Amino acid sequence: MKEFSRNERKRDKTVGFVPTMGFLHEGHLSLVKKSLEECDTTVMSIFVNPLQFGPNEDFEKYPRDLERDTALAAQSGVDVLFIPDAKEIYPSSLSVSMTAKQRTDVMCGASRPGHFDGVITVLSILFNLVQADRAYFGQKDAQQVAVVQGLVNSLMFPVEIVPVETVREQDGLAKSSRNVYLSPAERKQAPILYKALKEGEKSLSHLGTQETIKKMRDMINSSADGKIDYIEILKYPDLTPLVLNKGKVIIALAVQFDKARLIDNVIFTMKEE
Amino acid sequence: MKEFSRNERKRDKTVGFVPTMGFLHEGHLSLVKKSLEECDTTVMSIFVNPLQFGPNEDFEKYPRDLERDTALAAQSGVDVLFIPDAKEIYPSSLSVSMTAKQRTDVMCGASRPGHFDGVITVLSILFNLVQADRAYFGQKDAQQVAVVQGLVNSLMFPVEIVPVETVREQDGLAKSSRNVYLSPAERKQAPILYKALKEGEKSLSHLGTQETIKKMRDMINSSADGKIDYIEILKYPDLTPLVLNKGKVIIALAVQFDKARLIDNVIFTMKEE
Repeated sequence: MKEFSRNERKRDKTVGFVPTMGFLHEGHLSLVKKSLEECDTTVMSIFVNPLQFGPNEDFEKYPRDLERDTALAAQSGVDVLFIPDAKEIYPSSLSVSMTAKQRTDVMCGASRPGHFDGVITVLSILFNLVQADRAYFGQKDAQQVAVVQGLVNSLMFPVEIVPVETVREQDGLAKSSRNVYLSPAERKQAPILYKALKEGEKSLSHLGTQETIKKMRDMINSSADGKIDYIEILKYPDLTPLVLNKGKVIIALAVQFDKARLIDNVIFTMKEE
Repeated sequence: MKEFSRNERKRDKTVGFVPTMGFLHEGHLSLVKKSLEECDTTVMSIFVNPLQFGPNEDFEKYPRDLERDTALAAQSGVDVLFIPDAKEIYPSSLSVSMTAKQRTDVMCGASRPGHFDGVITVLSILFNLVQADRAYFGQKDAQQVAVVQGLVNSLMFPVEIVPVETVREQDGLAKSSRNVYLSPAERKQAPILYKALKEGEKSLSHLGTQETIKKMRDMINSSADGKIDYIEILKYPDLTPLVLNKGKVIIALAVQFDKARLIDNVIFTMKEE
């Protein structure tokens, strides 16, 4: 992988990088599409990173289908599909540890201790291996985008982070590898998450943070069996409390269904009233 | 700096990197010499990294002489002298922290908590900015070499770490920026450090670890006013206890003189008897 990227650099080709955990869906393919538009060569990695799963999380049962992924990647125009083994990425115990210190004590970070430490560690390794000019991330994982941007800014990795808009089903449900774990009944309920987010976006400027969250909570609780993990309204990308009703804002939520924990968000700019 | 290195890559030029804290001496220049021999382009950085100094250490009074350094760098054949400001390297509070977990609880790591965390953080940033093919480090800072090799192995930075033999004064004293803080009397005593190390190398196979350290301790205490911080005999580069009398071994020491703390070491291979 290093050798390949070095040669691309030598040939003055720009490299776009789409890091994934596989089980590809249209969300991933939209990242590939963007990379193909902007870069000469597109590298996709598939690596289910053990380091970012907690002991009680779904590492073992995270969905995998390399055969289908390989076909999809080829069809979508990916130039290099990089599928390292866990033993290649972590050949021995790490002699350094990395801790994400900012943008992590809210949203998913609050309920997934160590998750973003695992994310920034594997991405540091992948950035060093792939040596891309640009790396593409889905805005659905908005906190991940914010944390990774912090990593790249702080350690000055020579890569540009490009967030790409969330791809949705026709009924608004954000595409996710974990959607396959929704029961048919849950799948029918799930679009309420995005509806609630859009309602929140509309209500925030006149209702304020607390009332908006309450309204969204009521909407979700009255239409879905899932349990709300959080609904948060924060400044973006700092993920700090909203003090003034202006600037870039994220409304984000996580809902635990029986076998799938879904996340989604909207990011928008508030104008001072 | 990023732009420069990217262009060198494009031109298929190899980049050698000599990271320093300035106040250059022949030790640094030997690193430059090696880089000039092995690489097309040689980049030297001068950055006194606040993050690797403890609160009671000598960050403020660490010797600096940029004018002299610039002249020496030019004479020695350095192609690019990179002197970033602390505000450029750390423009805001770091959103990630890095911890050196292995090879740090012995030698200087034991008495300088956080020191190697600061070292690996700034080197990660500098590696990302300079994007060198090879980085040159003096073997005098043997623990630093071991820790940095661990960093590069673990996070797979696309750079080769090249250790370079310690440069010594005619009487054996290792060249160091901190030597200027020795009093004339201390300067006369200081060569005993290297003499004791060479004696240790000769004695180890028949005296064993404890007796060798005792012998070295006696030699230094009877000839120098400095206080011995540590004398340690360990496997290299793992810096773990010597179990068998074979393989690569380091004998390392630190001695605190009135205003200068000096370190030195010898690394050699023991053959089974």
